[in-house]
Amino acid sequence: MSKVRNVTTLHPFDEALALTPVPASAQEHGRESARHWTGRTHPAYANMVGPFGGITAAQALRAVLAHPQCIGEPVSFTANFAAALQDGEFRAEARPVRTNRSTQHWLVTLSQSGPGGVDSVVFTATAVTALRRPTWSAADATMPAVPAPDAVPRTPLAGARVAWLRRYDMRPCAGAMPTEWNGVEADSLSQLWMRDDPPRPLDFCSLTAMADVFYPRVWRRRALMTPVGTVSMTVYFHAGADELAATGEGFLLGQARAQSFFNGFFDQSAELWNEAGDLLATTHQIVYFKE
Amino acid sequence: MSKVRNVTTLHPFDEALALTPVPASAQEHGRESARHWTGRTHPAYANMVGPFGGITAAQALRAVLAHPQCIGEPVSFTANFAAALQDGEFRAEARPVRTNRSTQHWLVTLSQSGPGGVDSVVFTATAVTALRRPTWSAADATMPAVPAPDAVPRTPLAGARVAWLRRYDMRPCAGAMPTEWNGVEADSLSQLWMRDDPPRPLDFCSLTAMADVFYPRVWRRRALMTPVGTVSMTVYFHAGADELAATGEGFLLGQARAQSFFNGFFDQSAELWNEAGDLLATTHQIVYFKE
Repeated sequence: MSKVRNVTTLHPFDEALALTPVPASAQEHGRESARHWTGRTHPAYANMVGPFGGITAAQALRAVLAHPQCIGEPVSFTANFAAALQDGEFRAEARPVRTNRSTQHWLVTLSQSGPGGVDSVVFTATAVTALRRPTWSAADATMPAVPAPDAVPRTPLAGARVAWLRRYDMRPCAGAMPTEWNGVEADSLSQLWMRDDPPRPLDFCSLTAMADVFYPRVWRRRALMTPVGTVSMTVYFHAGADELAATGEGFLLGQARAQSFFNGFFDQSAELWNEAGDLLATTHQIVYFKE
Repeated sequence: MSKVRNVTTLHPFDEALALTPVPASAQEHGRESARHWTGRTHPAYANMVGPFGGITAAQALRAVLAHPQCIGEPVSFTANFAAALQDGEFRAEARPVRTNRSTQHWLVTLSQSGPGGVDSVVFTATAVTALRRPTWSAADATMPAVPAPDAVPRTPLAGARVAWLRRYDMRPCAGAMPTEWNGVEADSLSQLWMRDDPPRPLDFCSLTAMADVFYPRVWRRRALMTPVGTVSMTVYFHAGADELAATGEGFLLGQARAQSFFNGFFDQSAELWNEAGDLLATTHQIVYFKE
């Protein structure tokens, strides 16, 4: 029975993305177009400390897409993880700082109560949304040859020490998490199939979260665990709502690698294709590592 | 005599980066840490319409680095080109929204007078600066084998239709601008040596500008000219001030390619190495194209 989905129950991802509008206050005079929400971290997406970064990024993008003045679909999204979120409530502000004929630029901040009850910024983001028009199109980053999702065993959940790992069905094709932390250096490449667990139709917010699913490249590269934290992540969307709808609950193939590890920070570049081989997003991040 | 540099004359890049502080006004009460400057577009970096995007990004990063509260060096910088800048004055605001022990998160906006004299946002940026510490380091993106800068002819300036192209000594090794706009498709790869003209010691701002030197990938890919404009650009820095100083006035090798062209937007990923083969930065952007 555990595999039967109760359609009247919200998916944990949708529970996590629920935002409650805050009525505009007197202080917001002169910035009428900013909208505020309260949201909460969700236990199903908990990380070691605070929430999985992908869910925070998705919540911030949700604040943009839920804004009544939002035009078009996301083209670009940059999330900056300014501080570890505390479990509990946060406040989101989404502001369209520039609206052009077919593009719109956004600033998003997430705040939480800090010492003395003062709101402090824990996260910022910028986004660009756009009304796309059909043009000549071509995807030059082609999906690597890998076995089909059904032919790849899922990463066992027995070793999952944090809740959010249970929210993704991950099937590594190459570059799985090291099983021996022996310091033997390798390349930084990982390829894996991934989808929400339970399955959920893909949308821009869940695609954004999946851009952050890869485990830290420095762990792969060095087979050494060192404390890490994503500092900034950018997602470029190469698909519209129709293409995401066509992907539905199918798997995405993710491929990630690093280009540089230098004095405390490394980068990660990744691609996400659907099972049909359509490149849906490319994504980049820079990550702090301790030693 | 034209090659003799007059050391008492400012380099055009430094002229362009001059920012004049604006004293804090009553409206800024409660946001004491924001600082404001006025700057100007510079004719030496003019593009077809408004300035070269790289110089605008550099000016915004300059506003961060000039802030008296700035700690550390840039690790990550994302520039969003919200509207075409008009030639003339702009107003810059740089605000440290979060200062941690070793990292700092920034919001930057550039504004210009719009219709009716109202300030409107033309550009936003986020930046992360950090006090780096020595750690295990490795650059996995290795410089491709190309001829030395001296062995590669410079792109003639005779065809330079915009001023900013004269500010860079560019020496294409592969994927030069098409000479025939005949619609014959090619790959999107370009490799070129580049440096400031006149030469100038590399710093974080000039490295940021050079991340935007590549001509539009869609022109290379299709051998068709279509109107384009960078919407968002991210730079990850993989070097500190010492490594940039060691690079000095030497050439950088830039390599750029696209991964997707989809309904009006394409991406570009690029790497920048110095002549010694050190990877100084990786950079990504998403670019509007018309058809």
